[in-house]
Amino acid sequence: MIILGIDPGLAIVGYGILDCSAGRFRTLAYGAITTPAHTPHEARLSLIYRDLTLLIDKYKPEEAAIEELFFTNNITTGISVAEARGVLLLACHQKGLRCFEYTPMQVKQAVVGYGKAEKKQVIAMVQAILGIREAPKLDDTADALAIAICHANTGVSRLKSFYNLPNL
Amino acid sequence: MIILGIDPGLAIVGYGILDCSAGRFRTLAYGAITTPAHTPHEARLSLIYRDLTLLIDKYKPEEAAIEELFFTNNITTGISVAEARGVLLLACHQKGLRCFEYTPMQVKQAVVGYGKAEKKQVIAMVQAILGIREAPKLDDTADALAIAICHANTGVSRLKSFYNLPNL
Repeated sequence: MIILGIDPGLAIVGYGILDCSAGRFRTLAYGAITTPAHTPHEARLSLIYRDLTLLIDKYKPEEAAIEELFFTNNITTGISVAEARGVLLLACHQKGLRCFEYTPMQVKQAVVGYGKAEKKQVIAMVQAILGIREAPKLDDTADALAIAICHANTGVSRLKSFYNLPNL
Repeated sequence: MIILGIDPGLAIVGYGILDCSAGRFRTLAYGAITTPAHTPHEARLSLIYRDLTLLIDKYKPEEAAIEELFFTNNITTGISVAEARGVLLLACHQKGLRCFEYTPMQVKQAVVGYGKAEKKQVIAMVQAILGIREAPKLDDTADALAIAICHANTGVSRLKSFYNLPNL
């Protein structure tokens, strides 16, 4: 089972791709899709769509896990992030991935064991779980890997990966 | 100059397509893309993308005008609308349309002459300007036509249409 974790954004989209077959994690790729500022909004959405589609074609994930959005502070930024998130979900659906959503609290709970964990705790646990030596440079990348781990350890995926069941 | 006006939404996307060459409006199409409730969110985004792409292929608009979003009341609904808006902008950009944004107040100002006009005033003016006999049934459709009219009467488009200039 290959899982694509996504931390949505307009300037930076974090992604992490894990193979979690047979109860073990193998890190296939992680990084960030970035779009330049001072570029028309719709052009940035196109870049995000194109780059995510290329990643899906390359690594062929079967499920996508993406962070849910909560707007509390900056609603204007939030609108842009939501627009990017729509494009990310579209690309996943068009490529046949099943999509799952998790709140930041669920992700922290799954990875650190504490729903209000700090960023650096999430990064440290992601490194430990996946055996990554260097810290993922961007917070968004660590978050994306954390979302993929959260999904792998949750519900159907966990059963399938731990008992090595075939994909449905 | 063919203009596509869009009133974004997840359940209902209003659209209106006007040919405003040589200072006159010709209504090419108007209506709504609708997506069924109780359908996975990402599947609804795919439907919106597909249907808008089909409309663009059919009527070949050169510019898109889309309403800006403001969240004041229901932020959860707002996130869904913003996600749909991202997909709409993506489809327009991929098809080579130039995209323009207007606030609801700008649209009302352009169509009714008063930025805080009521819905029924907007509908009545859209009917009068375009010579549509029957009232567009859905508010979203009238809004989409109003956005297209607003764009036609604003800036570069107005100059081009009124002076019958070639497209750039």
